[in-house]
Amino acid sequence: MRPSNRAPDEMRAITIETGFTKHAEGSCLISFGETKVLCTASVEERIPPWLRGKGEGWVTGEYSMLPRATHTRGSREAARGKQSGRTQEIQRLIGRSLRSVVDLRKLGERQITLDCDVIQADGGTRTASISGAWVALRLAVNGLMKSGDIKSDPIAAQVAAISCGIYNGTPVLDLDYDEDSSADADANFVLIEGGQIAEVQATAEGATYDEEGLLRLLRLAKIGCDGIFAAQLDATKG
Amino acid sequence: MRPSNRAPDEMRAITIETGFTKHAEGSCLISFGETKVLCTASVEERIPPWLRGKGEGWVTGEYSMLPRATHTRGSREAARGKQSGRTQEIQRLIGRSLRSVVDLRKLGERQITLDCDVIQADGGTRTASISGAWVALRLAVNGLMKSGDIKSDPIAAQVAAISCGIYNGTPVLDLDYDEDSSADADANFVLIEGGQIAEVQATAEGATYDEEGLLRLLRLAKIGCDGIFAAQLDATKG
Amino acid sequence: MRPSNRAPDEMRAITIETGFTKHAEGSCLISFGETKVLCTASVEERIPPWLRGKGEGWVTGEYSMLPRATHTRGSREAARGKQSGRTQEIQRLIGRSLRSVVDLRKLGERQITLDCDVIQADGGTRTASISGAWVALRLAVNGLMKSGDIKSDPIAAQVAAISCGIYNGTPVLDLDYDEDSSADADANFVLIEGGQIAEVQATAEGATYDEEGLLRLLRLAKIGCDGIFAAQLDATKG
Amino acid sequence: MRPSNRAPDEMRAITIETGFTKHAEGSCLISFGETKVLCTASVEERIPPWLRGKGEGWVTGEYSMLPRATHTRGSREAARGKQSGRTQEIQRLIGRSLRSVVDLRKLGERQITLDCDVIQADGGTRTASISGAWVALRLAVNGLMKSGDIKSDPIAAQVAAISCGIYNGTPVLDLDYDEDSSADADANFVLIEGGQIAEVQATAEGATYDEEGLLRLLRLAKIGCDGIFAAQLDATKG
Amino acid sequence: MRPSNRAPDEMRAITIETGFTKHAEGSCLISFGETKVLCTASVEERIPPWLRGKGEGWVTGEYSMLPRATHTRGSREAARGKQSGRTQEIQRLIGRSLRSVVDLRKLGERQITLDCDVIQADGGTRTASISGAWVALRLAVNGLMKSGDIKSDPIAAQVAAISCGIYNGTPVLDLDYDEDSSADADANFVLIEGGQIAEVQATAEGATYDEEGLLRLLRLAKIGCDGIFAAQLDATKG
Amino acid sequence: MRPSNRAPDEMRAITIETGFTKHAEGSCLISFGETKVLCTASVEERIPPWLRGKGEGWVTGEYSMLPRATHTRGSREAARGKQSGRTQEIQRLIGRSLRSVVDLRKLGERQITLDCDVIQADGGTRTASISGAWVALRLAVNGLMKSGDIKSDPIAAQVAAISCGIYNGTPVLDLDYDEDSSADADANFVLIEGGQIAEVQATAEGATYDEEGLLRLLRLAKIGCDGIFAAQLDATKG
Repeated sequence: MRPSNRAPDEMRAITIETGFTKHAEGSCLISFGETKVLCTASVEERIPPWLRGKGEGWVTGEYSMLPRATHTRGSREAARGKQSGRTQEIQRLIGRSLRSVVDLRKLGERQITLDCDVIQADGGTRTASISGAWVALRLAVNGLMKSGDIKSDPIAAQVAAISCGIYNGTPVLDLDYDEDSSADADANFVLIEGGQIAEVQATAEGATYDEEGLLRLLRLAKIGCDGIFAAQLDATKG
Repeated sequence: MRPSNRAPDEMRAITIETGFTKHAEGSCLISFGETKVLCTASVEERIPPWLRGKGEGWVTGEYSMLPRATHTRGSREAARGKQSGRTQEIQRLIGRSLRSVVDLRKLGERQITLDCDVIQADGGTRTASISGAWVALRLAVNGLMKSGDIKSDPIAAQVAAISCGIYNGTPVLDLDYDEDSSADADANFVLIEGGQIAEVQATAEGATYDEEGLLRLLRLAKIGCDGIFAAQLDATKG
Repeated sequence: MRPSNRAPDEMRAITIETGFTKHAEGSCLISFGETKVLCTASVEERIPPWLRGKGEGWVTGEYSMLPRATHTRGSREAARGKQSGRTQEIQRLIGRSLRSVVDLRKLGERQITLDCDVIQADGGTRTASISGAWVALRLAVNGLMKSGDIKSDPIAAQVAAISCGIYNGTPVLDLDYDEDSSADADANFVLIEGGQIAEVQATAEGATYDEEGLLRLLRLAKIGCDGIFAAQLDATKG
Repeated sequence: MRPSNRAPDEMRAITIETGFTKHAEGSCLISFGETKVLCTASVEERIPPWLRGKGEGWVTGEYSMLPRATHTRGSREAARGKQSGRTQEIQRLIGRSLRSVVDLRKLGERQITLDCDVIQADGGTRTASISGAWVALRLAVNGLMKSGDIKSDPIAAQVAAISCGIYNGTPVLDLDYDEDSSADADANFVLIEGGQIAEVQATAEGATYDEEGLLRLLRLAKIGCDGIFAAQLDATKG
Repeated sequence: MRPSNRAPDEMRAITIETGFTKHAEGSCLISFGETKVLCTASVEERIPPWLRGKGEGWVTGEYSMLPRATHTRGSREAARGKQSGRTQEIQRLIGRSLRSVVDLRKLGERQITLDCDVIQADGGTRTASISGAWVALRLAVNGLMKSGDIKSDPIAAQVAAISCGIYNGTPVLDLDYDEDSSADADANFVLIEGGQIAEVQATAEGATYDEEGLLRLLRLAKIGCDGIFAAQLDATKG
Repeated sequence: MRPSNRAPDEMRAITIETGFTKHAEGSCLISFGETKVLCTASVEERIPPWLRGKGEGWVTGEYSMLPRATHTRGSREAARGKQSGRTQEIQRLIGRSLRSVVDLRKLGERQITLDCDVIQADGGTRTASISGAWVALRLAVNGLMKSGDIKSDPIAAQVAAISCGIYNGTPVLDLDYDEDSSADADANFVLIEGGQIAEVQATAEGATYDEEGLLRLLRLAKIGCDGIFAAQLDATKG
């Protein structure tokens, strides 16, 4: 049924390789099948101007695709002189998603930037980014707690993201590129451990969907995120 | 309960004044309470390069706030030299929403640009933009059909958008600025007449929400969009 | 003679609707016939860096056309990433014109920005902008005086602007788009109540003109500005 | 009276050194006293896209100040990434002024760009630019006529520009920097041999002026331009 | 002596992992010690406009550092809106170096872009980029020859690059970050198999150097490049 | 042999005209044959942010070509909105070269900017820029020492630059444009009086070169720079 021969509720293999780069306070290479994203967390002892003096920190995200992460080479945003609307949309989503589980007061007056750079793309780059960014953030915060810079854990919960879609009339989990490019609906869910929702972005493509369809996609997303939560825990243990 | 004293499922007054500017092929000033957006549809007999020779047209959206549409003056994006991520996100949403009800083959090799310029902002500018853009598009397409440039109506259905949110724990319809700035969740729904969904963007702010919350917001949105569909019909009749 | 059938010294109808938007400290929608400009005055308690510590304020202008204010859609300057030379020229003219009647010391260390956004264009947008900006400024300063933030009125006089031109050999007042696009000379005058001149910009187009021609245009401008001064007074009374 | 000890109607020494650079089809270094501008005319056998197929040519101007042409170093516009409003205003004026004396049909489908680069500034850089640009243009067109590329002279007349102002209450000719920075009014006149006017830009600074003042400045400008016309002729003879 | 305890003529371990990403026609992850660069070769059947119709192809390079490739996070060039001078300098060097061994006529009318993205930086990123880019290019050209798109091998030789410097008065090979930041001279050599030089860029830092010093650095570079040539061959065999 | 009929080790005539502009603290027009560069040194009593509080000054360079300095007109970088990679590369080289002979502590907390603007280009503009910039710097520092702002001379030595190349198989000194555009190798040397090297940039074009070739070019450069050192001394004496 699916080009990938996966069952409708079957995710691709998830791997998380922590410590992929040595300079970042936290880092991992997360793979959802052939989609590979390098996520790093950088801690800086400064905050954006509009936060100064409030006793709070900030968590933000940045996202980029390497030019040849995709089937055909895309031009470099730095060469074009601006980030695309898509890039900015994803960056905003990453930051918002991670902030939904962080107590910025406990973080103190510091900023953590989560850089998500797509090394290879095969669908689901934004959801892999969010899921991997949590791992990088967890590792960086672990370091801050170990060093005593932070007393009380500012991370309240795990957060993960997954895409679902309606493919040939069937709701399916974790779209790869082939599925994504011909799905009737494409939905990204950002979920928090315990069943809460941080964000839903569900877009009809070609065909529209109804309330029932939305619910079925949400339930698939819960299955998927449970798998990611387990992989995140595994990667950040010990 | 609500700062506006409205019932949870009560929308603000909607008015749509068509023909607000004389040059555009379709135009209206749409108001959701104190939020006022000028929507124009411009028909051009050219299409983006990547569509050439396919026998299809294109529908796209642009969005901007006048600098003093808001409580405090915002700097002009043209002066800053780039459009914000928020602006680009909204522009993409407007275009996608309108395209969800247009048959681009029936439109023929022409482009319709929907410009949504916010004259005054009080929450819900993107949903007012989408709802008003449909009116401008309808008027412009009516003109093309009258002149014989288009034979068969490319607009398959009405599309409208509304925001809902969880305010002080209660799901409410059509957030104004005061509600929006302190809501726990903020969701924008783009719905199609007949109950189909074109897009859901639901974001937790401060508090997260669950499946039940999402459903209750969606049901409020249906109530709201039914009101907008009626106002659209009324504005474009005769 | 004139495409508009107006007499050579006849202006288009002028209307000024104050309070057009609710957030700005002063605002109006000014119409010169079919040319409609929204002018807002925004008061900010900060000044440009180069003025700090001098005990003076600043008055500046910004100008933009909505993309479909004109016969054919123009691209958005924010999307192109820069303001055109024409836009910048007009912005500089608006600021200079308004400052010619303001005592910046009496204004105190605050900045007033006059945003002039053209909703619909039919010739004379820059002169309508200046004339309407004075109204918005007057209203904003009235508010500052009422609240006691300013003790002594910093506005020394009224300022208004009008375009004149030589059309088919005849000097005419207040060019509309049809006249403007085929006039031999196009002159914008910024005049101050009482007969003083703040600015003359007179450009030959196709044909040149001589001293006598310049004088005749100036005299037409005085007639036109007297009409605008009256409309400004009327709009800001009471 | 004047810081320069000049009589009110006395210009600074004008010198025009033709052939200052070897690659341009026409070039000169023009000096108005200590103001020195390098003007080059570049002929290119191509025209702007919007002119194609009309059998006409184009004449345009560009303007820049070297960073240390002035008392204190200004930052380089290329480094800032955009041209200032002032630069664009002057560029537009240069092009418009030169086009006022050129028959674009006789020029044929080619473009002449007049680059005016200020080597040293002491007031009046835009008027020196226009006056020198005419010389560069004349030389370039002479070459095109000599080579037979152009049959009939497209230059209908000489054009020159000069600034005048009201200094300490007295109308004076050809302001230098010291005068310019404290003048009550500053007017730039672009005149055509024979007494016609191509452009007037007269701005009140500090004090306003009246019709009589405008006329007196215009008459001074005529005296000044007569001197420039003579110097232009002298430089381009033989 | 050296912070790394290496002998003066001792390189860091070089590893080249080919096929690191699946979409590119050629790719490798090259490591010089802790410096890791992902190099991809993208083949496109189009050439820059200025080459059209000449029967030649083009080889060009692009370079970027991931924001947290370095000790402290650098801002993203795409976010700043332009590439730094350093980035552009390195990009030009990569393209020039690779073109020095490619016969562009044999390549045919196609372009190969070599993207060098630094995953982790510890000195020598530009030399690792050039050395890895050759591998990616070799793999991509192998593919073009296998498919028959290219008949005759356009790659005439191997090219590699290495940095040398004078550290505490001693010429040393392959500077790492600690050495680089305190070296008296820093030289990058691009060498071609067989002893020819493609490029020398030798800069004094703090102290200057003389002819003898330059020669000693060049000889070290030859030792280093011999090692890289061997690793390149090894990686691209079979 | 050489298009210019010069002997292989013969430079073009060098002239240095100091005081070419009156506002700069130091200035000269330097000519290498038909290549003419205006070099100015601007002293500012401020330093870049990253140097504050270190008790050091800064020396930096900027470079530009006038649009018609070359055979065919180049577009203005300010109009294109960015500086080319070539421009930035040359600017960085100018700054680095001059800093190699300046003791920044002795300079005190001030910045000297060396602006090199090419009036006319005929090959070797970057080397003429560096050589002329030293003269402008010397004159500016002389002024600072005369006024007592600097006690001890921060300039440790002369620095000059020259290009060499392999033309038709023969190493030649000081390439002009005709030679440069068909040379097999193009090398720029920045040398310090007494035989030390500040920078070597040697690039193969078409053909590569070997160690022997590099040495022969370096020796030519020494001959050339000796001539420039003499001209610099002559220009800055008394």
